[in-house]
Amino acid sequence: MNVNPIQLFDAESSTYTYILAAPGSNEAAIIDPVDHHWERDLAHIERLGLKLAYILETHAHADHVTSAGKLRALTGAMAAVPSGCGISPAELQLRHGDVIRFGAGEEIAVLHTPGHTGGSMSYVWRDNVFTGDTLLINGCGRTDFQSGSAAALYDSVMNKLFRLPDDTRMWPGHDYKGQSVSTIGWEKRHNARLANRSLEQFVELMANLDLPRPKLIDVAVPANRNLGLPHGA
Amino acid sequence: MNVNPIQLFDAESSTYTYILAAPGSNEAAIIDPVDHHWERDLAHIERLGLKLAYILETHAHADHVTSAGKLRALTGAMAAVPSGCGISPAELQLRHGDVIRFGAGEEIAVLHTPGHTGGSMSYVWRDNVFTGDTLLINGCGRTDFQSGSAAALYDSVMNKLFRLPDDTRMWPGHDYKGQSVSTIGWEKRHNARLANRSLEQFVELMANLDLPRPKLIDVAVPANRNLGLPHGA
Ligand SMILES: [Fe+2]
Ligand SMILES: [Fe+2]
Repeated sequence: MNVNPIQLFDAESSTYTYILAAPGSNEAAIIDPVDHHWERDLAHIERLGLKLAYILETHAHADHVTSAGKLRALTGAMAAVPSGCGISPAELQLRHGDVIRFGAGEEIAVLHTPGHTGGSMSYVWRDNVFTGDTLLINGCGRTDFQSGSAAALYDSVMNKLFRLPDDTRMWPGHDYKGQSVSTIGWEKRHNARLANRSLEQFVELMANLDLPRPKLIDVAVPANRNLGLPHGA
Repeated sequence: MNVNPIQLFDAESSTYTYILAAPGSNEAAIIDPVDHHWERDLAHIERLGLKLAYILETHAHADHVTSAGKLRALTGAMAAVPSGCGISPAELQLRHGDVIRFGAGEEIAVLHTPGHTGGSMSYVWRDNVFTGDTLLINGCGRTDFQSGSAAALYDSVMNKLFRLPDDTRMWPGHDYKGQSVSTIGWEKRHNARLANRSLEQFVELMANLDLPRPKLIDVAVPANRNLGLPHGA
């Protein structure tokens, strides 16, 4: 049976934050919380009667700052981050194949899905996958900074994400069109960037996107490597 | 076990649309779809491999137009609406106590919760309640038009919604602060307008809100009474 996460939105950066509430227990995990929404997010945790066990990051974001450090200080939850993202203050440095356990038998499986950044991870919980900026609904994250690589992203999607069951619900790190959720099966067949494209075609497509440098990157990445806390704090 | 709905947002009117997907079947229901999002909403239904069985309205909205008529024509789903809202083209005119059945044993219980409008309904599905504009997260809908009544809203909340189990997840028709979900227990204890207020205090509060007339009301209400279809269509 599919248990959907609770999906929260940051309208400034079009970022999705997810709360994973475990049936049969009050323990929860949160994925990719955004700095200025820490009160909103804690209010959800409180209203739902939850206790935060883990704060997960999919990567060191370039477009917004995380509230992971703040939430950790306020709740005592553990910060769990990709080991390849340089987020040194987090207690759990995740590697591909790790499993995070919380609640009454809940498991989050860790997949290393590099490409958007070199360290990017995706997280599988029940019949859901949280893909960060690796795979977006009918799209994918950019691959032109932070050890990004179109070839690596192609491999992550084809050989890791698209090997999940077709009916796996796919929850992206961003959406710019009001879309909430997709499935692995649909993305496999229809994703505008990845479906029916060879590695060479995909690499060429990504090389020609000509995207502007993210406005916040010089502030956000160092901040996120410190869990969003002021340096020296 | 709690199965969350899929929550979709209209940024223009801050309206939430919900897709209720039934475990063990591909049948689904949608609540309060918004006109210009009909393609987005159908894309979700398609991506999730769902078949739309019912389109529900919580009331005849004054701030946005429904896509119910359009979705009905495109999917063959049935439109189910509050009997007291003057939405005459809908095949199912719901009354308090009705139950809508879909999927493999899924039930939506119909509660008449007047106050925001005279006909407003709330819908209970599993451990979730969809409250339309009757009860909002830490607030409530206005009661100054469309047979609205602060006294009726107070009665609906106190004697119907607040009698649901405390851990019932409460999904509002709108939110203006990026909030997604609450629980009946939290709203009972903390709702800024309703918790610890007498009927008299609440009626006085609502009488003094002095809200502007909704910009779209003269267009939206007649359109919504025709399921969002052009008159004569
Ligand atoms: Fe990113
Ligand atoms: Fe309304």
